[in-house]
Amino acid sequence: MQVIRESLWRVAHEARELYLNDSVPYLDQPPTPLEFQRNWLCPNKPFILRNAISHWPAVSKWTAPYLREVVGKHRVSVAVTPNGYADAVYEGRFVMPEERQMPFNDFLDIIERKRAASGVFYVQKQCSNLTEEFPQLLQDIDPHITWMSEALGKMPDAVNFWLGESTAVTSLHKDHYENLYCVVSGKKHFILLPPTDRPFIPYEFFQPATYKVNEDGSFDVVDVQNAEKVPWIPLDPLNPDLSHYPEYSHARPLHCTVRAGEMLYLPSLWFHHVQQSHGCIAVNFWYDMDYDIKYNYFQFLDSLVKTMNAV
Amino acid sequence: MQVIRESLWRVAHEARELYLNDSVPYLDQPPTPLEFQRNWLCPNKPFILRNAISHWPAVSKWTAPYLREVVGKHRVSVAVTPNGYADAVYEGRFVMPEERQMPFNDFLDIIERKRAASGVFYVQKQCSNLTEEFPQLLQDIDPHITWMSEALGKMPDAVNFWLGESTAVTSLHKDHYENLYCVVSGKKHFILLPPTDRPFIPYEFFQPATYKVNEDGSFDVVDVQNAEKVPWIPLDPLNPDLSHYPEYSHARPLHCTVRAGEMLYLPSLWFHHVQQSHGCIAVNFWYDMDYDIKYNYFQFLDSLVKTMNAV
Repeated sequence: MQVIRESLWRVAHEARELYLNDSVPYLDQPPTPLEFQRNWLCPNKPFILRNAISHWPAVSKWTAPYLREVVGKHRVSVAVTPNGYADAVYEGRFVMPEERQMPFNDFLDIIERKRAASGVFYVQKQCSNLTEEFPQLLQDIDPHITWMSEALGKMPDAVNFWLGESTAVTSLHKDHYENLYCVVSGKKHFILLPPTDRPFIPYEFFQPATYKVNEDGSFDVVDVQNAEKVPWIPLDPLNPDLSHYPEYSHARPLHCTVRAGEMLYLPSLWFHHVQQSHGCIAVNFWYDMDYDIKYNYFQFLDSLVKTMNAV
Repeated sequence: MQVIRESLWRVAHEARELYLNDSVPYLDQPPTPLEFQRNWLCPNKPFILRNAISHWPAVSKWTAPYLREVVGKHRVSVAVTPNGYADAVYEGRFVMPEERQMPFNDFLDIIERKRAASGVFYVQKQCSNLTEEFPQLLQDIDPHITWMSEALGKMPDAVNFWLGESTAVTSLHKDHYENLYCVVSGKKHFILLPPTDRPFIPYEFFQPATYKVNEDGSFDVVDVQNAEKVPWIPLDPLNPDLSHYPEYSHARPLHCTVRAGEMLYLPSLWFHHVQQSHGCIAVNFWYDMDYDIKYNYFQFLDSLVKTMNAV
């Protein structure tokens, strides 16, 4: 058993020695599709591209008055939580936000502190909400990232729009997507962990629930009925509880800030935790990942970690 | 322990379900560098390219008379074994061939049965022997494979020349190279196993030795003095001893034949066993592999298999 634990430890450490960077590197020019495949996608390594979307009209146009003018009257989906944590572990449950439909103007009133509201508000619905709920804004951005689409030989599966309060946090998780995360205004702070750090990242099973706001502004946590328990990461990388999760002390999170005009390539299966400046606007492109040998090996690593944690 | 064995079993099976082909696919056109990265190198999958080297002068020029004319008087390195197995397990040892320097004409005499000789002869020295020992032949081939060099952003590390008897066999092993194997005349038969079949492939440690031909034509096996034992695969995929290595029954070897004019892309870390038609001539290009996440994960798989085999 100890030998297997050492193998798990070694896969993470060898990744750092062999190919990972100590910090997320910056590119000043977009990679060619071939360079992207060779240097980033195939080895599953993140980078930040400077001036990635400086040519988007959105960068100068997406002010509050403009957004009010073109989208303000339309109802959009907003995630509401008491604490800024949507899809996160809270008091032993996996709690999802209250998903509220509201005129975008009302949401902007809250962001601009023109209207008092109970809770933390975040437009963050990841169902290609930019194309589904904000079609008026599509004219202001590129519909896809050409070098990425050419590299992968396919178009994005989803384009998401993000706008929220500074207290809105995305808890540590991973996605089955190749992700291009573009900041239009403000900045996003990411904590990133490679898939090979999986041995140090705890998962537990939690009863799923949703927040529900009462008339008086207080929040209830309401269990989802007849739902299977959800595996999620209870650890907060901003304040890791090493007494409960001592293995996390071996993890080597990378911290990076993505500023307006920049784009983060967030590779599939990388764990990430996200914070933002107040009112930060971002657009991300999700491209379906390939379920290839890297995924296959990750599943193997994941199964071994689960086995060892069960011992 | 049983759970870990099941994980090892599953990594191989999921590879077949997720992305491996049931047989080695054929391409009629060379891939673009990007297609090669995306569809083959990154997912670590082999293919055979038809008409890959039909334009090489070598395909029509490399007859015995021509080879005698341009190389015949030069001394070249020839591997000599009693049984056709160079670098293979024999009677509990890892036995390397006698490496003999001889005029290429003498070697061709043996291949053409014009000269009796004891043992099996094979020009197979993998030290870029085409550039080192057969520079006269370089004019007849492309110096590298352009789509591969562009895809990887580098030139081949070695170009090897292969010519031998039908009884010469390359035992099951893997290389730390991306390999383009081009058949100029005759044909090669490959048995291929993906790296994810590692759990079913036995390794043992063997005393290294070399064959030494005596004056009377008999062979001795001479231990390499003060040498560490060598890990090698004792299993013969042509006749697997399943009573000793029952796990191999779970392996799913792919068989393929590469004919004159064709090229096999043999991905790094794939296990391969090679046979050939008598006098088959081949040239292969070795490109350094990237020691990236796939290698990292393979090392992890390898370490787990070793641990479980030691239990």
